[in-house]
Amino acid sequence: MKDKNYFLSKAQENYPELQFTVLTPDISEFTASSGDSVLLDLGEHTVGHFSFAFDKIDVFVDAPVRLIIRFGEDIREINDDFSQYKGILSKTWLQEEIINLDFSQKTTLPRRYACRYIKITVDKANRPIRLFDFSFRASTSANVFALKPANSADTLLNKIDVAAINTLKDCMQTFFEDGPKRDRRLWIGDLRLEALTNYYTFKNLEIVKRCLYLFAAGECNNLGFLPSFVYETPYYHSGEAHIADYALLYVVSVCDYYEHTADIGVVNDLLKICKSQLNSFEAILDKNLIVTMQDGWFAFIDWCPGLEKLTALQGVYLYTLERFSELLNEIGDEDFKKYSSLLSQVRSSCKKYLYDDNAKEFINDLDNRQFSVHSQIWMILGGVINGEEAKNLLTHCLDNDKAKQPVTPYMRHYVTEAMIKLGLENEAVLYLKRFWGGMLELGADTFWEAYIPDDLDFSPYEDRMINSLCHAWSCTPSYFIRKYGL
Amino acid sequence: MKDKNYFLSKAQENYPELQFTVLTPDISEFTASSGDSVLLDLGEHTVGHFSFAFDKIDVFVDAPVRLIIRFGEDIREINDDFSQYKGILSKTWLQEEIINLDFSQKTTLPRRYACRYIKITVDKANRPIRLFDFSFRASTSANVFALKPANSADTLLNKIDVAAINTLKDCMQTFFEDGPKRDRRLWIGDLRLEALTNYYTFKNLEIVKRCLYLFAAGECNNLGFLPSFVYETPYYHSGEAHIADYALLYVVSVCDYYEHTADIGVVNDLLKICKSQLNSFEAILDKNLIVTMQDGWFAFIDWCPGLEKLTALQGVYLYTLERFSELLNEIGDEDFKKYSSLLSQVRSSCKKYLYDDNAKEFINDLDNRQFSVHSQIWMILGGVINGEEAKNLLTHCLDNDKAKQPVTPYMRHYVTEAMIKLGLENEAVLYLKRFWGGMLELGADTFWEAYIPDDLDFSPYEDRMINSLCHAWSCTPSYFIRKYGL
Repeated sequence: MKDKNYFLSKAQENYPELQFTVLTPDISEFTASSGDSVLLDLGEHTVGHFSFAFDKIDVFVDAPVRLIIRFGEDIREINDDFSQYKGILSKTWLQEEIINLDFSQKTTLPRRYACRYIKITVDKANRPIRLFDFSFRASTSANVFALKPANSADTLLNKIDVAAINTLKDCMQTFFEDGPKRDRRLWIGDLRLEALTNYYTFKNLEIVKRCLYLFAAGECNNLGFLPSFVYETPYYHSGEAHIADYALLYVVSVCDYYEHTADIGVVNDLLKICKSQLNSFEAILDKNLIVTMQDGWFAFIDWCPGLEKLTALQGVYLYTLERFSELLNEIGDEDFKKYSSLLSQVRSSCKKYLYDDNAKEFINDLDNRQFSVHSQIWMILGGVINGEEAKNLLTHCLDNDKAKQPVTPYMRHYVTEAMIKLGLENEAVLYLKRFWGGMLELGADTFWEAYIPDDLDFSPYEDRMINSLCHAWSCTPSYFIRKYGL
Repeated sequence: MKDKNYFLSKAQENYPELQFTVLTPDISEFTASSGDSVLLDLGEHTVGHFSFAFDKIDVFVDAPVRLIIRFGEDIREINDDFSQYKGILSKTWLQEEIINLDFSQKTTLPRRYACRYIKITVDKANRPIRLFDFSFRASTSANVFALKPANSADTLLNKIDVAAINTLKDCMQTFFEDGPKRDRRLWIGDLRLEALTNYYTFKNLEIVKRCLYLFAAGECNNLGFLPSFVYETPYYHSGEAHIADYALLYVVSVCDYYEHTADIGVVNDLLKICKSQLNSFEAILDKNLIVTMQDGWFAFIDWCPGLEKLTALQGVYLYTLERFSELLNEIGDEDFKKYSSLLSQVRSSCKKYLYDDNAKEFINDLDNRQFSVHSQIWMILGGVINGEEAKNLLTHCLDNDKAKQPVTPYMRHYVTEAMIKLGLENEAVLYLKRFWGGMLELGADTFWEAYIPDDLDFSPYEDRMINSLCHAWSCTPSYFIRKYGL
């Protein structure tokens, strides 16, 4: 009987080795009185621990020194007025410390930060002080030194690859984190995309394996879905959300893993869980084989405000059924027939009940005709339409002002994947360059959690200050560039 | 040649062993949401490091927790509005931290605090939390377990003794600190009184020796006076002030040490420095053998605002000459005659030039007739007047509204010493009970840096919030109670 303890012990077997490098900021020393501040630039976005020293200049410092130290993923974050923060996530994610130091000494702050810039403000020093010996000890479980450049013929794609690699590198710690600034959790949606990119870059197979086991140890909800995220620190804890599309993408992640490793042991360990995810989903289909939406946070798809998610979720189901059937076929599992037969039936149903023949587009249902990129893309990825029909619909929805557009690089990944699937490689390159390149133009070192070119203040959490600027699900340009030799 | 390095190495030889005890606050656990706070009471004033843990109650805490932790020597300090602080010393001495904790964990704050009360406010916790496992690891170099109670017949004196002992205990760390909250320095004026009390209580002779050596290593100013204070952390540094009365009291401290140890080795090491302090003072006497006031912070005597210090300082000189002559006589040093002859001459001069025969009181000079307790007491301790004449003057000045009165327990120590010297033991007991007992009535666990019964907001630093409530120079009631069996 494989239980929580079994899966956790398997996850512990694969604890990844962290690699450490020490970064030195552009400024080596700074003299300051109360009120003065210095901005340090590490030269790249990174994740780790900050150290510095201070000492007197002439006169012994005869009282504790109070410093305000802020860490910024970008320069905008350095200048934000945190006191005005109005977001729905905890303000404690904003990276700033107020510290009192009794004596001049080498100090290492105990917390880990994600940043490129560090601003030190001397709130109070009774005498002028010298700040020096700045260093930042960065950690990652990605072997950055072994990785070769993408070597695309396209300069911009090479630049995008560098930032995508840096994004993945900073999210790869003891597991695949969603964002090293915030929330530092292992989410299924991020895991899948990080693992995909990792197969074509750092090739750290152990970290993928342990992430799969960490979810396997999680507690399913009343519908039978895996937790969408887990924590490992200070102790293992599986998250409260059980999003259906993430539960399905866990199955896809296992399929991806087998594709890149042929590791049948892991598949055998996880097969029962994968089947139960699909069976749980099947249990909430209506008589037409269309998913019935459930209460609570049931589907994610994208952070797009007001998005109707039924059709997209149905597409994720088809996408998963297809991949899982292939896996079962390959390993000779007799359930192959059951799932592949279901795949055909559900595809037909989708065309029948979710496609508007007049408008030539996917809707949610007859009452809810919202037109979104998300619905079209996931129906394409689910194989409901193909070829020219699919190409036309894809082009039509992306250029359409009336269509709900993706706001996360996560959803844009699946848009790009659909383009590649349909043979629209040039369009995929343009799409990558437009969206990920757009972040580069705005000075990004790593790719962001959310990005709307026309609304740079957009946040899924009602305040841009809390957005993560190095977010795992944004790292997939390197997957596309390297896998398809773009 | 005995140089700085020699003295510092002697000081290191006698590094005192710290004793640690763990105090548990009155509350063992507290559940809290954002905005809630808990007040912990350690039951006694103490010095050390605070530890605690937090964890979720029901729901995993999914963001860092921000706590505001304040340490109060008394309950008033807990309730003070630090944002209104207007004092002249650094606000960083006010004991409050704002800390962000990523995970539920056992946390030990890195800094040392002096407190009885600890208030923890949950500034932000995304979920309700449980705070628990509170402990305070206290340190002292006083052997508190070996010390017996004073056993006075007077209940109040016994209570005063307990608070005085606690004051000394908390100031005894790796050296005699002036105040464990602030400034944590070794000052000569405090050292002398701590050492005196220590001889009759904890009897830690090693700590006295090392403090004497730490000053011996200090750099004298242009007048030849020792630094009034030294720092030992993060490295040895002798302070910028060179107060004349403190330089003299260093010599007295060496005399005290020899009286209680007969340790001729230490005296031989320090004799040259002691002589140079007296010779430096002699060099700034005028033709009438009265000290000429020098620029800068030249004399301390007391924190009494507007105090004229010449006559008191002259008294400290006489007091020192007398003690030093006795020491030289005892150890057979041939300079005995020189200093004892000088003592007689200076005493005569003081009576002639600083005593107003009509008013029967000591003044500063003909232009400055300020009447202060300080001048009278130090002339009495300097032996310029004696017997009934001295008794009358002492009684007269203490009850006199027009006389400048002491504001520090430091100066009150010398008032009490003068009473004892004149055989006014009952008056000394009443004086102790009135002033030190007055602090007890106001809830003191340890005795304060400054105390004016009619002005509880008095501060030498323009804001009461910064006052030290456990101050070494206030510990001498135990000296009087135990030495004289009061």
